[in-house]
Amino acid sequence: MFLKSTILILKQQNNFHQKLIRTITTTIKIPERRQDFAKLTKDDIFIFQNLLGENNVKTNEIDDFNFDFMHWYKGNSSCVLLPENTQQISSILSHCYQKKLALVPQSGNTGLVGGSIPMHDEIILSMKKFTKNFELDSTSGILECDSGFVLEEVDNRIAKKGYMVPVDLGAKGSCLIGGVVATNAGGIRLIRYGSMHANVTGLEVALPNEQGQILRLGSPLRKDNADLHLHKLFIGSEGQLGVITKVFMQVVPRPLSVHSALIGVNSFEKCQQILKIGKQMLNEIISSFEFIDGESMKMVKENAGLDCPLSILSNFFLLIETSGSNEEHDSSKMDKFLTKILESGLAEDGVLAKNASEADQLWKIRESCPLAIRKDGYVFKHDFSLPLKYFYELPEAVRKQLNGKAKRIISFGHIGDGNVHINVSIPEYDQKIYDL
Amino acid sequence: MFLKSTILILKQQNNFHQKLIRTITTTIKIPERRQDFAKLTKDDIFIFQNLLGENNVKTNEIDDFNFDFMHWYKGNSSCVLLPENTQQISSILSHCYQKKLALVPQSGNTGLVGGSIPMHDEIILSMKKFTKNFELDSTSGILECDSGFVLEEVDNRIAKKGYMVPVDLGAKGSCLIGGVVATNAGGIRLIRYGSMHANVTGLEVALPNEQGQILRLGSPLRKDNADLHLHKLFIGSEGQLGVITKVFMQVVPRPLSVHSALIGVNSFEKCQQILKIGKQMLNEIISSFEFIDGESMKMVKENAGLDCPLSILSNFFLLIETSGSNEEHDSSKMDKFLTKILESGLAEDGVLAKNASEADQLWKIRESCPLAIRKDGYVFKHDFSLPLKYFYELPEAVRKQLNGKAKRIISFGHIGDGNVHINVSIPEYDQKIYDL
Repeated sequence: MFLKSTILILKQQNNFHQKLIRTITTTIKIPERRQDFAKLTKDDIFIFQNLLGENNVKTNEIDDFNFDFMHWYKGNSSCVLLPENTQQISSILSHCYQKKLALVPQSGNTGLVGGSIPMHDEIILSMKKFTKNFELDSTSGILECDSGFVLEEVDNRIAKKGYMVPVDLGAKGSCLIGGVVATNAGGIRLIRYGSMHANVTGLEVALPNEQGQILRLGSPLRKDNADLHLHKLFIGSEGQLGVITKVFMQVVPRPLSVHSALIGVNSFEKCQQILKIGKQMLNEIISSFEFIDGESMKMVKENAGLDCPLSILSNFFLLIETSGSNEEHDSSKMDKFLTKILESGLAEDGVLAKNASEADQLWKIRESCPLAIRKDGYVFKHDFSLPLKYFYELPEAVRKQLNGKAKRIISFGHIGDGNVHINVSIPEYDQKIYDL
Repeated sequence: MFLKSTILILKQQNNFHQKLIRTITTTIKIPERRQDFAKLTKDDIFIFQNLLGENNVKTNEIDDFNFDFMHWYKGNSSCVLLPENTQQISSILSHCYQKKLALVPQSGNTGLVGGSIPMHDEIILSMKKFTKNFELDSTSGILECDSGFVLEEVDNRIAKKGYMVPVDLGAKGSCLIGGVVATNAGGIRLIRYGSMHANVTGLEVALPNEQGQILRLGSPLRKDNADLHLHKLFIGSEGQLGVITKVFMQVVPRPLSVHSALIGVNSFEKCQQILKIGKQMLNEIISSFEFIDGESMKMVKENAGLDCPLSILSNFFLLIETSGSNEEHDSSKMDKFLTKILESGLAEDGVLAKNASEADQLWKIRESCPLAIRKDGYVFKHDFSLPLKYFYELPEAVRKQLNGKAKRIISFGHIGDGNVHINVSIPEYDQKIYDL
């Protein structure tokens, strides 16, 4: 039933981490360490120290790099390298290639599937100090920057010039722009601005080969059809092909007017119809179209004390955001849209945030879903993209399959993109449930 | 001075084609025919006839396939194959691989650089009959279709369901959707909807190997991060890697309100400032931001009899289009924008089309630029993407370099994307000018 390769097991209590990690490592089969990879020696460390300076080669107090941020996965690296420029990365990759040393690139280390954590004793190449070059062409809206900048910092810097990073994620305060590209992270605004493929125009990358070759692929131009578009291969490649050192991307004008509304709907069929009407009536100003099922709403009330602001507890909820350049126009479009879906009976109830604080409250409900469910005990988490017509069939199939054995099955996600998160909670980890 | 690989030489009079073709083949160095490629035999033809039916294997009257649509390039193929399904393409590629037969895939054959024309005697694989499967998911806005559909037909079919193809080209009446993807064609709406990378979510492709392997890469989902994003490699690959057989792409809601305005500006610096203000004030409704220099405007008057609707002949013109969902809102935004740039003195003059017919007249000026200049005699054509700050330095450098030797040097293009077309006309083809 469950996709074993992407499964995650959560536990609320922090002191259970060691037990949890054992559970994960027995549950998810980690390949044996390849014996043809060399062991790190003092000579290697010495070479790295010469290359990066002693401060940028860490061999002590490196738990923050060996653990993921949720403390579910643990690596056994003994060395973290913190390069500050591309030439250093090139030299590191070249040395590792020649000495057969395994290495894992690590960006903001905010992933939920352990992708940035060593499986064994790999060297960690952290991009956190890789933050020298930053340039925005404020006429074309093309940003060129090193891959180590924190997403939120990138956004704050360009905000001064009226621009916004098109991608927005819960992890924006700590994820790095290079990692966002490497994982092709989507977030809540994909419906409006597209994925990183729509926005990244070029990359500088360092390859893990004998020379630690540096390639500049694509360019800082919105349109560039010279050669094969090789930089696209690195978007979503998650460190398999090389290290992303520099990002060229378009950023978007910062919206001057933002509106959020929460709508209660009693069938999934109606949710789809509302999405369709929203695309017509809100059209160019839609920036989010999020989905929360009734079970999720009950859960955030019980586990996080968040009240549903609507009077009826519907089977489904839609959280809709618009972003535009004209307050009056956007507000009129949203009003007409809400009137239409309420008067036609497609929506049972709806509320429009009157100010930023009310909007924050609505978004808090959606943003609490992934973490608040951990209070139930163990959580099996899944992240699926599905054609819209099957979007809610899967949660229903999971419910049928588990046949009352789970404490709770909730679904939430990006209905506008067909991306649904299904979370199954049980009081204690149970291999039998997992095997279902 | 000129990029020899992309240079094109035009001539107005059709009866000079043969001479022109000779000029092109002597000017652009075509590689020798590789002798390790086999010659097509009667047996091969027989096999193809069995595979496709006799009607779909053409060996006579194939000039339309051997010539490009402007009749500047000529191939010497003796066989055109017109498959109707993926399995047939796979079998053709497999046979050609095994027999060492060279083959050139040909889509709508609307390119201006001879990319779809055989260099020697290659078999032509035409995609024109590849038009069986067509399906639009009208909720998600994802289109799945065979690669042989004409772009305009795709657009007409989905218009009935309120959608629009995000790409718009002059060649839309004859170019095929597969070729649009294979060349990553941009067109006038790239500023709004992005390139094919922003819109294509997956492809089915057939590889030129022993099995004629069929791969389905990506998916009909807006968000799909499984595996490397290999379909991206085929976007803009121009037939180098394989044959695109099926396209999965998102299409966009058809705008309900469209406005066009032509603005006269006296410096390129001011054009950039207007672009910046346009991005802020028109923001989510900009769909085109085109550039025409004063020399182009004079040329369309002299060569095509099109009058500039503005009273002053400015040094530069901007043709701006908005597309949105609300007539009243869009019209108000456009009015405010025009008032601002006129009152601030950034624009010298401006005109807003009052109806579709007036808008067509404005667009006719821009669309006539590439062809009307042919009346001058020979034309050297170039297609550059440049950072905006250098966008108009290149035409000026060309002017300086030619130092009065050209009849006319005009520039027009997509200023919103940094893509400029520079055309140099001279009365007769002159190798000395070319060598400059």
